[in-house]
Amino acid sequence: MRRAAVQVIAPFFALAAAAHAAEPLPSWNEGAAKRSIIAFVEQVTKVSSPDFVPPAERIATFDNDGCLWAEQPMYFQAFFIFDRIRELAPAHAEWSGKEPFASVLRGDVKGALAGGEHALLEMAMTTHAGNTTEEFEKIVKDWVATARHPVTKRPYTEMVYQPMLELLDYLRANGFKTFIVSGGGIEFMRPWAERVYGIPPEQVIGSSIKTKFEIRDGKPVIARLPELNFIDDKAGKPAAIQHHIGRRPIAAFGNSDGDLQMLQWTTAGSGARFALYVHHDDAVREWSYDRESHIGRLDKGLDEAKARGWTVVSMKADWGTIYPAEGGASRKAN
Amino acid sequence: MRRAAVQVIAPFFALAAAAHAAEPLPSWNEGAAKRSIIAFVEQVTKVSSPDFVPPAERIATFDNDGCLWAEQPMYFQAFFIFDRIRELAPAHAEWSGKEPFASVLRGDVKGALAGGEHALLEMAMTTHAGNTTEEFEKIVKDWVATARHPVTKRPYTEMVYQPMLELLDYLRANGFKTFIVSGGGIEFMRPWAERVYGIPPEQVIGSSIKTKFEIRDGKPVIARLPELNFIDDKAGKPAAIQHHIGRRPIAAFGNSDGDLQMLQWTTAGSGARFALYVHHDDAVREWSYDRESHIGRLDKGLDEAKARGWTVVSMKADWGTIYPAEGGASRKAN
Repeated sequence: MRRAAVQVIAPFFALAAAAHAAEPLPSWNEGAAKRSIIAFVEQVTKVSSPDFVPPAERIATFDNDGCLWAEQPMYFQAFFIFDRIRELAPAHAEWSGKEPFASVLRGDVKGALAGGEHALLEMAMTTHAGNTTEEFEKIVKDWVATARHPVTKRPYTEMVYQPMLELLDYLRANGFKTFIVSGGGIEFMRPWAERVYGIPPEQVIGSSIKTKFEIRDGKPVIARLPELNFIDDKAGKPAAIQHHIGRRPIAAFGNSDGDLQMLQWTTAGSGARFALYVHHDDAVREWSYDRESHIGRLDKGLDEAKARGWTVVSMKADWGTIYPAEGGASRKAN
Repeated sequence: MRRAAVQVIAPFFALAAAAHAAEPLPSWNEGAAKRSIIAFVEQVTKVSSPDFVPPAERIATFDNDGCLWAEQPMYFQAFFIFDRIRELAPAHAEWSGKEPFASVLRGDVKGALAGGEHALLEMAMTTHAGNTTEEFEKIVKDWVATARHPVTKRPYTEMVYQPMLELLDYLRANGFKTFIVSGGGIEFMRPWAERVYGIPPEQVIGSSIKTKFEIRDGKPVIARLPELNFIDDKAGKPAAIQHHIGRRPIAAFGNSDGDLQMLQWTTAGSGARFALYVHHDDAVREWSYDRESHIGRLDKGLDEAKARGWTVVSMKADWGTIYPAEGGASRKAN
């Protein structure tokens, strides 16, 4: 770069850097929620603080559905399952007469979900197993690259929450290691979590099916079996955190009763702890639901958060921006 | 520090830094094994290399028993089990008449192991379950701090291999993320792996029992249940790697047939790959065993290593030092 150009451009970089240092979480409106996050981070990172936590122990865990990205009108992974069923249908003539597959193929979501958990599990196994880990990764990547949300018409990975992306960046800039701990499928999230959230595969924890290493035609593969391994929800979350991380988080972020045990486990540790619930109360820019919702129900958790002084984020009041595409603060590129 | 002192001491620091940069792996004798490691690391880390691998994908997995620390005359975790049985015996009067516990209490190791896998599993469950994760962590820490190996009389954590500690440091200095993938208990290794190997709990993968989150007297705990969850050995290793890391390693290190599938999985990936077997052939400084050993058997793996050109380390010829306490190169303090 020529010197004159450097002289012109350099101040802008300096300004940008200063702005970033001066104002973390730009998409968060000023208020108690934003203040509580910054106060906690300063409390555990200032060397002079009595609550200082060494970087290796700065573990932060995040739910995914409804916490890092949206989850309405149904979990995005369910859309993936339905799309997969439609794609696999030509090889399964019997599905046209067999529920819940027949309903999916007719476009009847309600009918497809009428069989409850059992039907959902059957659809999940049919669409998630029977291939290798590498094949499944490619299927997910292709789907994420092309599928669109039925309401917003956006790619699902653009329905992540801009304020939460900034929070992930802010924590990592302060020496935290960020993990996803989700009820969603571990191998459904990994193919895009690093690009979208900056969270590498080894820091993604989720529900899983069993797998089996074997040699096929002289080539080692890991086959995905149609058998549940672990449901990473509710009391499963602290157990999975211990299994994968082996260390109790000092900060945990969720949005539903499915995250309550993770927040309880996190805050029951010694020293400074932080727990935050995202409360979906913005019917205009997102969706409004809590105690009565069949997806992402936040009922007991809301009571416990209030009783224990956890941070409850009002999406309506605390977030200046919901999705990255809305502009406002732009996505950091690192 | 006064200026004169700084002037005197500074060159020594500079020299030390230069020596470190100039000669990695100081406890490794010059030879094909050491050369193969350095050549691989340069191949994947030089930006100009056609085989360059981005830091996020530089995953290296290490077996523990017989690879990072010794495993004779039996797995160190078995000594822990026997010690625990002796400690718990006063509360179990029935054990004096019940195998395999009676043999352990008589000091009869052979008798204790006569019941084979079933007896070992029973002893493992009795000594590893029935407490919380925090209680078990403390038990392991206390044991590791005080127990001594019956032959060398050294603490077990001093029977780690100095050349492997240097290898871990060398890989990390080159942007690798180092993981343990061991048949040993995941919660048996975590309490000391960070201090001894520089490997944090979230990068330790091992065999595990089931756990359960629950609230006890108003306090959340994770209870350890007497039920096997996963055996992280042989074909279990690649499956566990996929489950925990979600990314195929580019380098893997083992010493037995129990590591063969991990090395197969690692080397079957595209691009530059590295596999290494530690061969226990030093009866004077350590132990000599391979094809016929009931612990750490290296038979099929040795054949496959030779056929496929994997690095086979002769402990006798390739290692100038075995344990850190022997001097030679001193342990890096970071």
